[in-house]
Amino acid sequence: MSNQETTVVAKILAKPSQKELVRFQLLKLVEETRTEEGCILYDLHQDSKNENLFLFYEKWASHDLWQDHIKAKPLKRFRKATKGAIEEIIVNELAHIK
Amino acid sequence: MSNQETTVVAKILAKPSQKELVRFQLLKLVEETRTEEGCILYDLHQDSKNENLFLFYEKWASHDLWQDHIKAKPLKRFRKATKGAIEEIIVNELAHIK
Repeated sequence: MSNQETTVVAKILAKPSQKELVRFQLLKLVEETRTEEGCILYDLHQDSKNENLFLFYEKWASHDLWQDHIKAKPLKRFRKATKGAIEEIIVNELAHIK
Repeated sequence: MSNQETTVVAKILAKPSQKELVRFQLLKLVEETRTEEGCILYDLHQDSKNENLFLFYEKWASHDLWQDHIKAKPLKRFRKATKGAIEEIIVNELAHIK
């Protein structure tokens, strides 16, 4: 499992009053994350009906490299910069089956 | 909006006792949907920690063609074949922002 490509979907729900701050920090996070080892795809979306809801569709070269990303500086910086601005984050690690 | 490419994420949570039936029907749905007009991407995943949870990452040529897919025969057939077997479906239409 650890050496296989892994897909991740992360939903980020911003507090309504903080959505611009969260969006700005997410855009910054995309730039930084794409330079990380093992990052194949890191695409940021915003829900068409709920502007507070953002979603990443990510592909990583392995589960372990994805875990490295979670511990790396850019995500730590993002968490610090958006402290108190996020309502909820839901992360799903997925296997591509077809 | 209607003529722009649209991204969709659909989460399908199967009832635990019905996950094999739902998986089988989802695999069938993939084959059929990929032949539909406007279908750019229709990728099926299964959650690594929760085998009852499936997720589609979809790209459609326009919002309207995605709507056509929702009304088309393959999805109707899928709904009929999985009646009573699904706990919850959550669909998000998204704009790709970066």
